[in-house]
Amino acid sequence: MVIIDGLQYSSWSREIFRQMRSGGLDCVHVTIAYHETCLETLRNIGHWNRMFEQHGDLICRAGSAEEVLAARRAGRTAVVFGFQNCSPIEDDYMLVEIFHALGVRFMQLSYNNQSLLATGCYERNDPGITRFGRQVIREMNRVGMVVDMSHSAERSTLEAIEISDRPIAITHANPAFFEPALRNKSNDVLKALGESGGMLGFSLYPFHLRDGSACTLQSFCRMVGDTVELIGIDHVGLGSDLCQGQPDSVVTWMRNGRWSRVTDYGEGSADQAGWPAQPDWFSTSEHYPNLTEGLREQGFSEQEVGKIMGRNWLDFFERSFSAT
Amino acid sequence: MVIIDGLQYSSWSREIFRQMRSGGLDCVHVTIAYHETCLETLRNIGHWNRMFEQHGDLICRAGSAEEVLAARRAGRTAVVFGFQNCSPIEDDYMLVEIFHALGVRFMQLSYNNQSLLATGCYERNDPGITRFGRQVIREMNRVGMVVDMSHSAERSTLEAIEISDRPIAITHANPAFFEPALRNKSNDVLKALGESGGMLGFSLYPFHLRDGSACTLQSFCRMVGDTVELIGIDHVGLGSDLCQGQPDSVVTWMRNGRWSRVTDYGEGSADQAGWPAQPDWFSTSEHYPNLTEGLREQGFSEQEVGKIMGRNWLDFFERSFSAT
Repeated sequence: MVIIDGLQYSSWSREIFRQMRSGGLDCVHVTIAYHETCLETLRNIGHWNRMFEQHGDLICRAGSAEEVLAARRAGRTAVVFGFQNCSPIEDDYMLVEIFHALGVRFMQLSYNNQSLLATGCYERNDPGITRFGRQVIREMNRVGMVVDMSHSAERSTLEAIEISDRPIAITHANPAFFEPALRNKSNDVLKALGESGGMLGFSLYPFHLRDGSACTLQSFCRMVGDTVELIGIDHVGLGSDLCQGQPDSVVTWMRNGRWSRVTDYGEGSADQAGWPAQPDWFSTSEHYPNLTEGLREQGFSEQEVGKIMGRNWLDFFERSFSAT
Repeated sequence: MVIIDGLQYSSWSREIFRQMRSGGLDCVHVTIAYHETCLETLRNIGHWNRMFEQHGDLICRAGSAEEVLAARRAGRTAVVFGFQNCSPIEDDYMLVEIFHALGVRFMQLSYNNQSLLATGCYERNDPGITRFGRQVIREMNRVGMVVDMSHSAERSTLEAIEISDRPIAITHANPAFFEPALRNKSNDVLKALGESGGMLGFSLYPFHLRDGSACTLQSFCRMVGDTVELIGIDHVGLGSDLCQGQPDSVVTWMRNGRWSRVTDYGEGSADQAGWPAQPDWFSTSEHYPNLTEGLREQGFSEQEVGKIMGRNWLDFFERSFSAT
């Protein structure tokens, strides 16, 4: 069974890469930019280059489904780069092609706030995709970079699905029917996503789960079942949003970047300003087998479990990462 | 009579600075950024530092009404820096204070397109001021940088007037009742601007004028009269938008920046892609006396002409450029 995680942003270390191997993780889409400029993002890629050198026995870079399978055969976890914001391309559509050449395969059009391309889920109003946004989607379609709307607002997401010539992804979010967080997605969005051939990665971040940190594996797997009923078995996968070992200063950076003079708590609050605790059945990259088991118990067939755990993402990568 | 121009972006040269002196221009707000990043803008300031050295007999920097008057006494044209976009502050509210320290006194919240702060006049939809925008307006209010909405869309402009604790400016635009360009302003915006103590600078850019390049001085001055009837004599000044000596490549840059793969013609068209010809009664900085004369002929009193030609801007600078 191929196991692929549609999003992580852990505090990378040899220990975590070992856990990935031990959990059977074949591929992970990692975030390399939240608010970073172009130059800052290039430096993050440079840092990943060092990690690929130092931990080449455990991880390697991948920019295609073929490279994911090659990594799997070599007993390594394939790492696919992505942005949670469009800040790395700054105001320049030509940087899409540049970053694709450097291995970037996903870009969110916005992160919580209004961006130059689209609206984030915490803005009051959502005017949809901007003039620049339309041109960037076209360029992403051309070079093979996936539009990711995980942190975007409703109208922008529906318009991105419509404007994009290629299927888009919501790499890490859950249905709002499971937990009505602003970050989770409406049935309208989920249906449009599925009908257009897109992918939803189920999040294991407590603020996206019913009962938060106390969410049970059974409850999570029932949500997977309900979502499959809504949009079909071929359009879902994992997108754990696992941020293992990150200090609270990192979640503060994610929420506040450089834009906010007063502290923004995002999905948290002044009382709970830091990271929420992960459910104990999914707190490290060793825990993927718990999900496999939970999905089996939910009644999914072996083939269906395989699709959810990674096969759907692999097929999506195959269709999405090359130039048209 | 103090003469102040609320906006120019000419291809600066000793010849043009001489024309400013010859036209009696005491102060000009110059654009130092359209799409420039922070670093590019710092370099533009560096270039201005060289011009102040080389042409110190004709021009000097000014960041206050007092410095404008000192320049006038010394027989020089005072230069006030401004941005036509928020690109120089990138994603960092702290750069507002930094640029104020370097002499920047105006910043447009958006330029034609959606920005991180507000919507531009050519976007299809306008959701108003963003989350980041609210924080930046507060910071601009605090340090004494004027919110300029010349190229912004209607709702964003009305919200900026409401959110800002200090009066804002529309440094270069005309009423839409004079010429229904997307860049010109509705009566609603003009009234809200006037009632809040803001300033409108009348534009002499042909696309903002009735009959374009063939607009007569009389027609322009009648528009000034009609606007004064609408919002009062204390809220209007000049904002010529004079772009003397710029090659067509510059207007292409203004319109397309780095955001557009396909050519955007802005207010022009494929047939008329370059600069439009200025009316012959206002084509260089020697022509301010034509405006003075035209306003007199329109029936304005000497005191009223003085207010329009520069006194209102001077008073506005006095109220706006210092920290609260």
